[in-house]
Amino acid sequence: MQIAMVQDRIVPAAEIDPVYFDRGTFFGDGVYEVMRSYEGKIFALEEHLQRFARSLSAIEISGIDLDEIRSRILRAFDAAGIANAMIYFHVTRGSAPRNRVWDAGLRPNFFLSVSGLSDNSADKAEGIAVSTFPDWRWKRCDIKSLNLLPNVLASTAAARKGCAEAIFADEAGLITEGAGSAFFAVRGRTLQTAPLTANILPSITREFTIKAGRNIGLAIVEESLTPEQAAHSDELLVASTTKDITGVVRFDDKVIGDGTPGKYTKLLAQEFRSFTV
Amino acid sequence: MQIAMVQDRIVPAAEIDPVYFDRGTFFGDGVYEVMRSYEGKIFALEEHLQRFARSLSAIEISGIDLDEIRSRILRAFDAAGIANAMIYFHVTRGSAPRNRVWDAGLRPNFFLSVSGLSDNSADKAEGIAVSTFPDWRWKRCDIKSLNLLPNVLASTAAARKGCAEAIFADEAGLITEGAGSAFFAVRGRTLQTAPLTANILPSITREFTIKAGRNIGLAIVEESLTPEQAAHSDELLVASTTKDITGVVRFDDKVIGDGTPGKYTKLLAQEFRSFTV
Repeated sequence: MQIAMVQDRIVPAAEIDPVYFDRGTFFGDGVYEVMRSYEGKIFALEEHLQRFARSLSAIEISGIDLDEIRSRILRAFDAAGIANAMIYFHVTRGSAPRNRVWDAGLRPNFFLSVSGLSDNSADKAEGIAVSTFPDWRWKRCDIKSLNLLPNVLASTAAARKGCAEAIFADEAGLITEGAGSAFFAVRGRTLQTAPLTANILPSITREFTIKAGRNIGLAIVEESLTPEQAAHSDELLVASTTKDITGVVRFDDKVIGDGTPGKYTKLLAQEFRSFTV
Repeated sequence: MQIAMVQDRIVPAAEIDPVYFDRGTFFGDGVYEVMRSYEGKIFALEEHLQRFARSLSAIEISGIDLDEIRSRILRAFDAAGIANAMIYFHVTRGSAPRNRVWDAGLRPNFFLSVSGLSDNSADKAEGIAVSTFPDWRWKRCDIKSLNLLPNVLASTAAARKGCAEAIFADEAGLITEGAGSAFFAVRGRTLQTAPLTANILPSITREFTIKAGRNIGLAIVEESLTPEQAAHSDELLVASTTKDITGVVRFDDKVIGDGTPGKYTKLLAQEFRSFTV
């Protein structure tokens, strides 16, 4: 590389910050995690680290010491001093002249940010609206990678319709999951969500929601729903790290239940919160 | 955002370079182009700019002046002074605290690099080996986006098998295209390639290869091939900006023709080169 240009400024090769050659930007060649703390305590740190290790391994980024990552997370969290924080971090394969085939010797790049979580108590009290969007994502959504453009497009399309989340429906006419959440239906005394396949993120909050469901006596069904089935469920809810369990009261044009978060949704949220203290 | 961390270094919010908050890295929320020059002359500049405009529009990045982009390209190309250059550039939606839903007011980020093209005359003379890989890409490959992790994984898997390119085969058992190229078969006096759908990049070199095919008297068939059909074609070739037309002499374990680039492949490459002078 002889010449680079950032905005309208020409920069000689020798002077450019390697971050401009991050494979994370060129290709989305990296994986990430989002964690949160409740009242000064990081929730499910080890579960997130374990999933992160699986994502790294799936795309063959090696040389990452999980103990070092854990220590960086704790150090940054301490420095931020935010009781209810969102912690984001990613590792990319490294910086190098753009080439799809990677060199074995690359040093991975690490980036982390800690910020205050926005309050979502109103959403939890009133429930949220969601809208469906075609699942345009790649076929390995079990890997938490930086290839998230379909999620961006779906989330923004949903927001424009006044919806807080987009729910993906695939070509087979089945709901996979939310653009940033797992998706659940309560039907009778069952709690239903899509099974973990290559198209579903093994969500940490999904696991805790299933555990909460068992604890309150719901039967767990891991089977994909159609949008039609979802729209006619007793209750719907989404589960994610930053918003834990939030009731869904509108699904596309259909009002769910009486238009407020359902009985089991509230019990699930309450049970979930007991895990976090 | 209160605290960020780059590698093992904590950085206060006020001091961090906005490039670390590029939506290109967080989400692959951007689009790109690759062009090349032949002996000091950029090839198909306007075609690339027009496709770039379509990609920007497809993901709703606005406020980009194509005349300004063209002038930056020409300025950087002049400054580099490389006769046979590869010009890469991307535009991302901008830098902002991480949020899938984008804010309307973001200022897009522009990055460009100019480098010398590596000589591929040996590959062109001898032909290359390719290997198939499952098409894990998202469902809008007609948009030239930064979500390229499947291409990275496929290209690296191919390289490990001694192959110069990966060829994607989808779940329906059909070849879509190469990880960084369009894919063609010569069967009798026809030149065959996949039709332009939402899963195929509208490759500029593909168009010029089709034009070259017509000029040398081949019938054009835009119909997807199975790997089986490809393996039994008279000739195979890939077409891309940086390598224009290169013959394929091995497809997975199958030797194509007599194991050297075929007659029509050579005629196509010769005809293509006439477009570039």
